[in-house]
This record gives sequence, structure tokens and C-alpha cells, in this order.
Amino acid sequence: MDPLSRAHAEALDAADPLAAFRERFVIADERRIYLDGNSLGRLPVATRERLAALTEQWGAELVGGWHEWIDVPVRAGAAIAGVIGAREHEVLACDSVTVNLYKLAMAAHRGGALLTDRGNFPTDRYVLEGIAQERGAELRIFDGDIPWEGAGLLVLSHVDYRSGALLDLPAITSEARERGVPLIWDLSHSAGAVAIDLHDAGAELAVGCTYKYLNAGPGAPAFLYVAEHLHAQLRSPIWGWFGQSDQFAMERDYEPDPTVRRFLAGTPGILGMVAVEEGAVLTAKAGLPAIRAKSCAQTDLLIALADARLAPLGFTVASPRDAAARGSHVSLRHPEAWPITRALITLHDVIPDFRGPDSLRLGIAPLYTRYADVWDAADRLRGLVSRGEHHDFPAERDRIT
Amino acid sequence: MDPLSRAHAEALDAADPLAAFRERFVIADERRIYLDGNSLGRLPVATRERLAALTEQWGAELVGGWHEWIDVPVRAGAAIAGVIGAREHEVLACDSVTVNLYKLAMAAHRGGALLTDRGNFPTDRYVLEGIAQERGAELRIFDGDIPWEGAGLLVLSHVDYRSGALLDLPAITSEARERGVPLIWDLSHSAGAVAIDLHDAGAELAVGCTYKYLNAGPGAPAFLYVAEHLHAQLRSPIWGWFGQSDQFAMERDYEPDPTVRRFLAGTPGILGMVAVEEGAVLTAKAGLPAIRAKSCAQTDLLIALADARLAPLGFTVASPRDAAARGSHVSLRHPEAWPITRALITLHDVIPDFRGPDSLRLGIAPLYTRYADVWDAADRLRGLVSRGEHHDFPAERDRIT
Repeated sequence: MDPLSRAHAEALDAADPLAAFRERFVIADERRIYLDGNSLGRLPVATRERLAALTEQWGAELVGGWHEWIDVPVRAGAAIAGVIGAREHEVLACDSVTVNLYKLAMAAHRGGALLTDRGNFPTDRYVLEGIAQERGAELRIFDGDIPWEGAGLLVLSHVDYRSGALLDLPAITSEARERGVPLIWDLSHSAGAVAIDLHDAGAELAVGCTYKYLNAGPGAPAFLYVAEHLHAQLRSPIWGWFGQSDQFAMERDYEPDPTVRRFLAGTPGILGMVAVEEGAVLTAKAGLPAIRAKSCAQTDLLIALADARLAPLGFTVASPRDAAARGSHVSLRHPEAWPITRALITLHDVIPDFRGPDSLRLGIAPLYTRYADVWDAADRLRGLVSRGEHHDFPAERDRIT
Repeated sequence: MDPLSRAHAEALDAADPLAAFRERFVIADERRIYLDGNSLGRLPVATRERLAALTEQWGAELVGGWHEWIDVPVRAGAAIAGVIGAREHEVLACDSVTVNLYKLAMAAHRGGALLTDRGNFPTDRYVLEGIAQERGAELRIFDGDIPWEGAGLLVLSHVDYRSGALLDLPAITSEARERGVPLIWDLSHSAGAVAIDLHDAGAELAVGCTYKYLNAGPGAPAFLYVAEHLHAQLRSPIWGWFGQSDQFAMERDYEPDPTVRRFLAGTPGILGMVAVEEGAVLTAKAGLPAIRAKSCAQTDLLIALADARLAPLGFTVASPRDAAARGSHVSLRHPEAWPITRALITLHDVIPDFRGPDSLRLGIAPLYTRYADVWDAADRLRGLVSRGEHHDFPAERDRIT
């Protein structure tokens, strides 16, 4: 069978061990092909039920519900731990990626330059810029090789949010530990899509978001990971009552909790938090080995289709061609990427992400994306560009991309 | 009519202009008297509907929902502004009280001692302790009069979380401005229950929670207020992409948004945020003058009943007797406060809060609390203590109070 035929894609779906997981998500429109799970994942059916139940619990149990809710950041964290190869007591769900990165960076930085690469996600660069100003530290935004000399903290994204390039987490972690440079991994674009074993790699610090491949909803609480051997040493800069060792003994000075809870700050948002737990539990059920295998096969298929059918229309693949060096999204560059994005959404119900200046980002969430969806998306994209349909759309970009 | 009779309480309910607001809340159990709205307010019916609609919107619109969601922190902030006498563009809903206090305190402190009073809520003290350590600043926890000399920042709670004492916000604000000391008000125990006019008082900075009298749900996002004339001067210590001036121009250095949005950090949690908006809109609809008038009348009634019927059983009123100097809760001290709290909840379906070492805190949320509820609560409390029912309960306290 032609490996680039739709029939072949259908055959892959028929043999897919994860196929049944699609039914666990709300699919409001069967024609729509959603390739933006790397900005916001779909709604799990179980989460819809859990949110309704939580709302009822608030109404009925009122403040009594806190007997259960008090542990939700730790329980949701334990569920995430199973997805990123951490131990259960090393992960918390709380705050946003930005706030969590700030907490860990302030805790881990004890002098020296603050390093990150120019391609890192903006909020990660901004957080380091702010800390550099507060502490009068050097900020070093680098291109290419890591300039280790004089480094006091390194922050890296595991998967590049534009190209999809996947860094070698174990190797870089090893080098950082040999050099004694604290390293914080941002797992926002890999958690739930790429097999990660933080414990095995000896990684000490990480943050990540849950609204992408963990399907926890718009602006869902983020997570943070601190390896157990650092719990006693590191202190959050934000001293809050949820990080206090005996939270309800109100009369004492601050003394951080001995566990990872010391990185909690204020009262956690329970509505968002239960969605994090549901999303992480669902992901763990499917298992990262199966998710990663399907993700690689699907991004491979997309790249093969792009080479065969889209390259003649001016597209170039901007993501690594080796699946082992790639996360779960593929970026396609095209000089008219913006109007093509608008036409693809508006006329053909395929939802990618535009990333400036000239890329369509196609994110594949293997739990609910079929091989046939990948084939259809590439086919609709080819059709619209070959017919010039994007010429009817404005060339300038919108506020939200 | 005997002003301490149940018939009189019923008459007050019959004449209550806010009586109909009770129907706008989910009341799962009519016998239960909920006097813990100052820890977690009830679920508004509109919020239940809004949360279900938001969940469906996530499922159906997916990432497209962000066209609307991006402004929710500002819209919810504008709704809160109407409740605290701020202007619409001066308030944001975001993060937790702890994180917001940290952001404003780091922004406003430019040297000098960090001041707060010993009775302030623990998380407020902890935040200042942490900043004092980071910056090598003096931390001054005071009793009684404010020790202004050498002050670089003052943090005060508008209403004391234990006694219910209400500070004179306009007078203290005036003095702080005359002395040039930045002052942050924590409105957690007053927003939605006490009439506040930040603008009129010349207050410059405030934070507060929304899960108490604003009825926004467990761990709902908090708010922050920054007077407009400070927007250009103050910078959050946490530089994140939601505070960036042109958020989706990803390639630039950080440049804070010119508006209050500069105090946003990471991606805001939308699930919690819509509940904040609903709660604040509902409160604004009732209006703070009417809410405050009812709150004062109800706490007056409770104190009168305590004096007449509870004092002979060993209770003392630990809250100010002048309604003008009191928030919306009344603290009753009793040597056996803990077992009495347990008995009151377990045997009589009255929900107060225990605050160590020896207080029952009875919080009155006027939007859904009836005068008859106040009367019944005092009557059930009197009955149980006079019969000694609390002697069947353990004397030691639970983890969550």
C-alpha cells in the first residue's frame, strides 16, 4: 500500500492501540481537525464530569470541602509525576509556569550569570530578565552552544515551542551537574507528549504547563518539580501560608514545610486543579511509551506528506527530521503562513497555530488525533494553497496567534 | 416586640431589601446555618451555570476561546473595582493573595523597614519576612501604634481576621501618604462586605481574595489594585508574558504593559476567573451600602444575643461593639471553643470557624444570611452549651480549622 495514501493512514488507525482514547474526549465537531493541542488540549469527558461534581461539592459541603481540597495540589502533582518520571512527592500542581519558574529560579540561583537560549519561550526569558535586574546579576541570552563559564543558573525548554526541536535532557542534565550549575527544565511542550524520566536523568528542577498535552483546560495551574535531595536546601522567595510547615498554627514565624509543599504560596485554585488531576491521570493511563510512539509515527507521516505534497507549493519543514530529536509538533514555513493559517481555519476546519514570522505549527496530541486526521489536514492544506484560497485573507496578523 | 425575640428577627427578614438575593445562591440544606462565608462563600446559581457554559466552550471552541478569555482578568477586575471603589482599569483578578501581595510589596518597597502588625493574617507576615530576607531589609512586626520612623512599606489588613476589627482606611491612608510610606491594604475580609472607596480615600495599593464575601469558589483567583498614577512607576518582580506590552510579539525584550496588566504574570486560570466575575457582578448588583447596612444590623443582633444569652455560659464578645469599627464577623471567646465548634457543626448544623486558641468566628454574609438564621444560630449555641453537649467532643483541634 502507498505509505502516503489515505487508506494507509486508515490502516494505521485500525491498528492503533490508543485509538479508543479519542472517545474519552469531547469532540464537538467531527469535521474539525484540531492540531493545536500544543496550545490548549481538548476537554476530557471525565473532566467535564469532575468539574460539575466539584461545583456541586462547593455548593453542598461549603468550607467542609477543604478537608479534601487541601491535598489536591499534592495529588495532582503525584499524577503528573507519573507522566514525567518523577517520584510522587517531588511534584506540585500550583500557580502558573511563570510564577513557578520565578520561584525555582530565585531559589536555585546563588550568584553567577543567568543563562537561557534566545529561542526559549518569551516568559522564561522575561522571568530571568527580571531576576537579573533584582539581583544585579548578569543575564546571558545565548545562541548555539551553552556558554557555561560563570553560569549561576541555566533554564532550558525541553522542546522548542517553534521548531519542535527536542533537547537531549539526560546529556545536558549530566553536564550541568558535573559543572555544578543549577538547571531548570521547562517541560511545557513535552509533558504528556514525550517520554521523560527526570529521576533517571538526575534532573533536579523543572516546571511545566498542563493546558497543552495534559488537557487540563484554559490557564490551568502549572506544575513544578524539585528533586527530593533539594527539598531541605531550597526556599521559595514567596513565603506563603500554604508553604508553612504547620499551616494552621497561625501565630508563628515562617518555617517552610519540609516537603515539596514549601513551594506552595497562596490558596490554590481548586477548580483548575481537579482538571489537572484528571488530565494527568488520563495521560498516565495511556502511558508515555505508547503516546510517544504514536506521536513519532504521526509527525513522521506529516513530514513525509509535507515533503511530497507541500514542498512544491513553497512549504519547508522547519522541524528536525529525526523523530528522536523532535517533540510532538511540526513547523512548516511558508512566506504566506499567516493568510494560509486563516484560510485553513476558516474554510477547512483545520486548527493549527501561527508562530511568527512565517510558520504554521501543527501540534499532534496522540490521545485524540487519528492518522487519518493528519492525512486530511495535509490534504486540505495542499488543496487550499494550490487553489490560492489564502489570497482572499488579509496579510497582517491578528492579536492572538 | 422584644428585639431579641425570633419574631422580631422574622420581621426584620420580611422588611429586608436584600432578602431576594438568597434565592440567587445554591442552598443545598435548608436547616444548615452557614456562618463561614468569611472562609468560603456560597455558590451563586449564576456561577454554576457559567462554569458549565465555560466547560462547554472549552470543549467546543478550543483555543479559539482565548479571543474572549484573554480579557477575563481585566473584566473580572473591573467587576471587583465596582465593589471596592476603584476605577475599572485599576484592578486585576489574578494569582493568589500571597503572590499578589508579593508582587506589589516588591514593586513598592524601595528601601526602609517592612512593617505590619502582629495580628495580620499569617501569609501577609510571611511574605514580608521573605522579602526582608531577600533584600536584607528590616522587618518590623508591631503591636499597637504604627512605628512610622524609617518605614519603607506598610501592609495592613482592613479587617482583622480574628477579632473582626475594622481599621480606619481613609485616615491611615492619609497619614501614610503624608509620610511618604507606601501602604498596601489587604481587603480579604472586607471586599464585598464593607463599603470601601479606595479612590476617594486616596489608597494606592491593595490586594484581596474573592472566595469569601465575593463568593468565587475554593481558591478562586485573588485581585490586586494599583492606583492609575502608579501604573507607569511600579514594576512587578515577576516578569511574565501576560504582563508584556505586546504579548504576542515574541522576539522582544521585556517591556511592561503601560496599564495595570503589567501586574499579570503567567497564563491566568480561566475556570476560576469566570467565577470571580460572576461573584463580583452579583455583589455589585446588591450594592455595598445595602450589604453593609444589613451586615451591621446582623452583627449588632448577634452581639446583643451573645450578651443576653451566651455571656452567662462563659462566652465573651471579642469583636468591637461599635458596628462602625467592625467588619462582618463576630468572634466569641470561650475556654472550650474547640469542642463547642465541633458540637455546633455536628449536632446542630451551624457552621462557624474556629480560630485558635479559643474563638468561634461567626461570619455573616448578608446576601444569603437571614436575621432568623442569626437568631437560630445563637439559640442552638446556647442550647448545646447549656446542655453540655460539647463535653462529648475531643478537646484537641483538627488539622483544618
